Amino acid sequence: LRVRSLEDIDALDPNAARGKILFVSVPTTRARNGEGYGKAVGVRWGAADRAAKVGAAAVVIRSIGTDASRLPHTGSMKHPVPGQSVPAGALSTSDADLCDRLLDRGVPVSMKLTLTSTALPEAISANIVADYKGKDAPDEWVLLGAHLDSWDLGTGALDDGAGAAIVVEALRLVKEHLGPARRSLRVVLFANEEAGLEGAKAYALAHANEIDKHIVAMEADFGTGAVYSTSIGGGPEAHARFVAIARLLAPLGVTLDEQESEGGADTSPLREAGVPTVDLNQEGSTYFDFHHTANDTFDRIEPEHLAQAATAFAIMAHALAEAPYDFGRRTPRAGK
Amino acid sequence: LRVRSLEDIDALDPNAARGKILFVSVPTTRARNGEGYGKAVGVRWGAADRAAKVGAAAVVIRSIGTDASRLPHTGSMKHPVPGQSVPAGALSTSDADLCDRLLDRGVPVSMKLTLTSTALPEAISANIVADYKGKDAPDEWVLLGAHLDSWDLGTGALDDGAGAAIVVEALRLVKEHLGPARRSLRVVLFANEEAGLEGAKAYALAHANEIDKHIVAMEADFGTGAVYSTSIGGGPEAHARFVAIARLLAPLGVTLDEQESEGGADTSPLREAGVPTVDLNQEGSTYFDFHHTANDTFDRIEPEHLAQAATAFAIMAHALAEAPYDFGRRTPRAGK
Repeated sequence: LRVRSLEDIDALDPNAARGKILFVSVPTTRARNGEGYGKAVGVRWGAADRAAKVGAAAVVIRSIGTDASRLPHTGSMKHPVPGQSVPAGALSTSDADLCDRLLDRGVPVSMKLTLTSTALPEAISANIVADYKGKDAPDEWVLLGAHLDSWDLGTGALDDGAGAAIVVEALRLVKEHLGPARRSLRVVLFANEEAGLEGAKAYALAHANEIDKHIVAMEADFGTGAVYSTSIGGGPEAHARFVAIARLLAPLGVTLDEQESEGGADTSPLREAGVPTVDLNQEGSTYFDFHHTANDTFDRIEPEHLAQAATAFAIMAHALAEAPYDFGRRTPRAGK
Repeated sequence: LRVRSLEDIDALDPNAARGKILFVSVPTTRARNGEGYGKAVGVRWGAADRAAKVGAAAVVIRSIGTDASRLPHTGSMKHPVPGQSVPAGALSTSDADLCDRLLDRGVPVSMKLTLTSTALPEAISANIVADYKGKDAPDEWVLLGAHLDSWDLGTGALDDGAGAAIVVEALRLVKEHLGPARRSLRVVLFANEEAGLEGAKAYALAHANEIDKHIVAMEADFGTGAVYSTSIGGGPEAHARFVAIARLLAPLGVTLDEQESEGGADTSPLREAGVPTVDLNQEGSTYFDFHHTANDTFDRIEPEHLAQAATAFAIMAHALAEAPYDFGRRTPRAGK
């Protein structure tokens, strides 16, 4: 039974859905900023939960990605209430296209699911934190985050090996070329971003009594592309103070984005606690061709673009740490 | 143990090769006419045979393709002498790159092979032959060939569903727009091209006593791309006679290629028996991204390019069949 949205699942007559495999066919559109993923990923997150509620036997979604490879995408899903979920899988976009063509022509489509994934026991992992001490205010930080874990179909070269490389290399570039700033720079490589932001939550908890010493948080979690724009989200004074700093990246081709920074996943607990975020937006037109698939491998890395991104992070982080002012505080939970 | 060519395998000291898995790392270069495949495919054909001769335990080749997907390529291999071959597999190009990077850095690489392919019993299949009778010489033919079978990782949309579509559509276009020519047009959809040209050989055998009535043979077996050039191979008089006919395709952007036509796989038994061939060369820069992989699916089809190719085949086939002269005979086995 084909549906086109989560709302379509909710609207199903349970008599029609019962015992059926639901096929949720929602394409992901390609965009430089990855907005197509944001619009489509709710299907992956919620389809099994919704399908269970209408009594379906299972659910199969069109992969949440922009590629046309026959390697399906994976990713996090809403944790089921025990006994209240159903088997769920993703079809590659090519195979979803095939199903759509057949169904469009009225040809009956039957599926048999053989799902081999398993949930392994939880294990201990750890964040990695590195500080480069500031000269004047060593206990104030500009944080640069990325994450250590990845989905294990591929090797995680883009998500988030590239981000980890960017922030580590950015710190190295600052040390080599700029030296210490007024405040400290802190690189955090977070554990377990993919399965629930556990590292990010643990960091925010461990540093709860010094959250207000985090002047800005930045994050690299969008692959290998070059940075094309930057934006800030902070207090009312943040944007005006940021304009001159953003201009430092103009020689790298980076423009100022007037939109409020959305921040990233690992910095979201900090953002919700009021910490300003600065986004360095990376070209991501092809990111969702590889992300969360077996194709997330080292050969996708674009060394020149990665080097540009590391340079942009270095200049930005140093300038933010050097600034004679801060960027205010966000209204808690004002972030998207 | 890594080697870079078949000759490198032959040169191995059997004491060094014995019990080892050989990794044959030869990249396929991208080219519009697919020449990179021609240069690389000998590795797939011959590696297992050569590896057995030096006592290796198995052989793994870099996939003979131009893609960067983690879906490996398959294809025909030299039939082993029983007891004188070794297990053989192909690594995706991404995984071959990984092995190359590790080996280049002196990191030991170990492999464990789990090969699940099997050879099924032979079965009967058949060529499909359709004639569109000529007005004046119905027992002389211009043949348009393609093949029905494909490697079963994908659905064979490009290899050779596209070719079958081109020649069938070409015949339909001739019937609808041009009508019968002096000679007959014959579409042949050959059985079992991939595993030994059985259909092509059977056709040549079945028509051995009328081979000289085959004026020209054409073949569509290069995917979905538009035709960009055309060439002929025949008797000494063929090229001069072909120039005016080739010019008919100029409005489609097709140029005359002065090289002698190589012909295709399914028409090779005819070519070797003296039948002239005409090539309509299709743009194939991306063909070996998909060919013989799980990615050979319908969503790769480019309808406008496929329509252009069918139009080119239609115009060319009708003009060849209408010509008041023939194109001589090839010197038997003069083809490459």
